[in-house]
Amino acid sequence: MKATAIAPSNIAFIKYWGKKDEDKKIPDNNSISMNLSDLTTTTTVEFGSQYAEDSVVINDGIDDIQSRRVIKHLDLIRKKSGLKLRAKVVSINNFPDGTGLSSSASGFAALTLSATKAAGLNLDEKELSILARLGSGSACRSIPDGFVEWVGESAKSLYSPDYWNIVDVVSIVSSDKKEISSTDGQKFAKTSPFFQTRLNNINEKIAQFKKALKSKNFTEFGEIVESEALELHAIMLTSTPSLIYFQPETIMMMKWVKKWRNEGLEVYFTVNTGQDIHLIVEEKNREKLIKKLEEIKEIKKIIVNRPAVGARLVEQHLF
Amino acid sequence: MKATAIAPSNIAFIKYWGKKDEDKKIPDNNSISMNLSDLTTTTTVEFGSQYAEDSVVINDGIDDIQSRRVIKHLDLIRKKSGLKLRAKVVSINNFPDGTGLSSSASGFAALTLSATKAAGLNLDEKELSILARLGSGSACRSIPDGFVEWVGESAKSLYSPDYWNIVDVVSIVSSDKKEISSTDGQKFAKTSPFFQTRLNNINEKIAQFKKALKSKNFTEFGEIVESEALELHAIMLTSTPSLIYFQPETIMMMKWVKKWRNEGLEVYFTVNTGQDIHLIVEEKNREKLIKKLEEIKEIKKIIVNRPAVGARLVEQHLF
Repeated sequence: MKATAIAPSNIAFIKYWGKKDEDKKIPDNNSISMNLSDLTTTTTVEFGSQYAEDSVVINDGIDDIQSRRVIKHLDLIRKKSGLKLRAKVVSINNFPDGTGLSSSASGFAALTLSATKAAGLNLDEKELSILARLGSGSACRSIPDGFVEWVGESAKSLYSPDYWNIVDVVSIVSSDKKEISSTDGQKFAKTSPFFQTRLNNINEKIAQFKKALKSKNFTEFGEIVESEALELHAIMLTSTPSLIYFQPETIMMMKWVKKWRNEGLEVYFTVNTGQDIHLIVEEKNREKLIKKLEEIKEIKKIIVNRPAVGARLVEQHLF
Repeated sequence: MKATAIAPSNIAFIKYWGKKDEDKKIPDNNSISMNLSDLTTTTTVEFGSQYAEDSVVINDGIDDIQSRRVIKHLDLIRKKSGLKLRAKVVSINNFPDGTGLSSSASGFAALTLSATKAAGLNLDEKELSILARLGSGSACRSIPDGFVEWVGESAKSLYSPDYWNIVDVVSIVSSDKKEISSTDGQKFAKTSPFFQTRLNNINEKIAQFKKALKSKNFTEFGEIVESEALELHAIMLTSTPSLIYFQPETIMMMKWVKKWRNEGLEVYFTVNTGQDIHLIVEEKNREKLIKKLEEIKEIKKIIVNRPAVGARLVEQHLF
C-alpha cells in the first residue's frame, strides 16, 4: 500500500487560462505543452492503519493550504478505490515552488499516480490524466509522454519525447512568490474584454501550431509560442482586477530575446504567471544561448530541459 | 513675420492608437487628454528673404528626420498662406525628447501656432487643431485648454484647467530612446487580434469616462485611466511584430502604484509608449506621493504637472 512516482512539470506552448467549469476544471480552450526533463516532483504515498490522520510533507515543510488540497485529492482516490485508510504523503520538488514553475502540475501528476497505485487502483493513462486534472488543471498534461495536448477532460501525447530535439532553458530571475495564484487569477479571465475574442480564434491558432509541430518548422513554431505568451499576458493585464504577473526582469529578458534574435540567434520566449521565463532553442543553439544567459547578472539560475516522459512509478521510496 | 508660441505636452487618459486614414492622421477612435503644465515646447519661427533655405534647430541640435517633418509642416502652412519665403525655426523642449513624453505633441502644437502667426494667418482654435494634427496626431490635443477631447479632425476643450485640482506626476525611469517610434508602432495596431474588440467597446468606455470626469469621481476616473493604459499595452503586445514598450522599471512602478493604493494612497498610473510613467493623484495626496517617489532609486526625475492651458503666443522670441 505504498508507491512512489516521479512526474515532470510541463511548459504550455498554447496556454490554459479560464475554465468552462470551475469545479471540474474543464478548460475554456485546449492547450498544448511539453514535459520538462529537469523540473520534476517525486512523491511517495503510503496508506496504512498506523496513520490516524493524513499527513503531508512537501519539500520538508508543512503548509496548511497545500495539505488541504492534497487531502482533498486523497479523498477522491479513497472514494474511487473504496479504501478508508489514512495516508502519509512525502513530496519533493527539485525546483523552487510558487515561482510560476508549475509545481502544482508535476505535484498533482506525481500524487495521482503514486496514490492510486498505493490504493491498489490500476488506472490507464486517460483515467490518470482525468484524475490529475481534478487536483490541478495543468497536471493532466504531466501524465502522458513528450508533447501533449489537453482536450476537455484529459490530455494525451501528440509526440514522444525523442520526436524533436528542442530545448527549454528556464531562466529564474526572481524567487518572489506570486501575489495572486494562477488558480485565483484565472477566475478573472472572463472579465477581460478580449477573452471571448481569444476563444473565438484559438482553434485556428492550435491548428497552425500543430502544423508547425508536425513539420518541425521551428520559426513558425517559435513565433506562435511567443505571440501566445504575450496574448495570455494581454488577457491578464486587461482583466478586472488587472493582473500584472510580469516582473521587471521578465520584460528585460523579453527584450534580450528580441535582440539576440535580431543578431541571428533563433530563440523564442514563453512565460506563464511566474517570475521565470522559458527560452526555447534548437539543440544546436543551446550552448550559444547559455553563454549569453551566463552574462546576465539578474539571472539567479538556469535549468536546461529537454522533452521528457510523463509521470511514472519508481522503485525508490522517499520514506 | 516672426512669432513665438509655447505649447504643453498632454497626457491621454483615453488613448489614441491606430489611424483610420494614415496620411490625414484621422484616428480610429476618439481620445481624451489633459494638458500638462510643466512639459512644454517653445518655438520661434521667422519667415524671411534672408533665409536661402529652411533651417530647424531643436534643443540646440540638428536632426535630419525631425527637420524633414518640420519642413513638411512649413510647406503646408506656406501653401495655406500663399507665402513662398523660407524660415528659420528654433525650438526648445523643457524635457528630454524620444522618451515617450510626447515632444511631438507639444512640438507640433507650438510650431503650428508660431508658424501660422509668422506667416500672417490668423487661424481659430479648430483650424489650428486640424493643422497641428497633420504634423503629429496627438498635437491637435495640445491646442485647446485644459481637459480636451479629440474627435475626428480636431480637438476641443471639455473643461478649463481650473476645473479639477488633479496632479500628474511624471516619473522618468529611463532616458533610453524608444526602439520603435509611436508613429511606426501604431501602423501595426490593426494586426492585434484584439484591436477591433477595443474599437467596438471604446465609445462606451469614453461615455463612462466623461461621466466620471463630469462628476469628478476620482476613483472611477482613475480606474478607467489605468485599465485603458493596460488595454493599450495589451494591443501593442499582441501586434505583429509584438511591441514591448514596457521597460523593466515601468512594471516596477505599476507594482508600486498597486501597493500604495492597497495601503490607502489613492494613486493611478497611465503610461504611453515611452519609459515614463504618469501617476495621477488629487492635489491633497501630492506631497505624500512625492515623498514615496523620492525613496525609489530607479527614478531619475519627477515632473509635477497640473492641468494647463493649450498653445499660446508669447512675446519673447528665442532668437
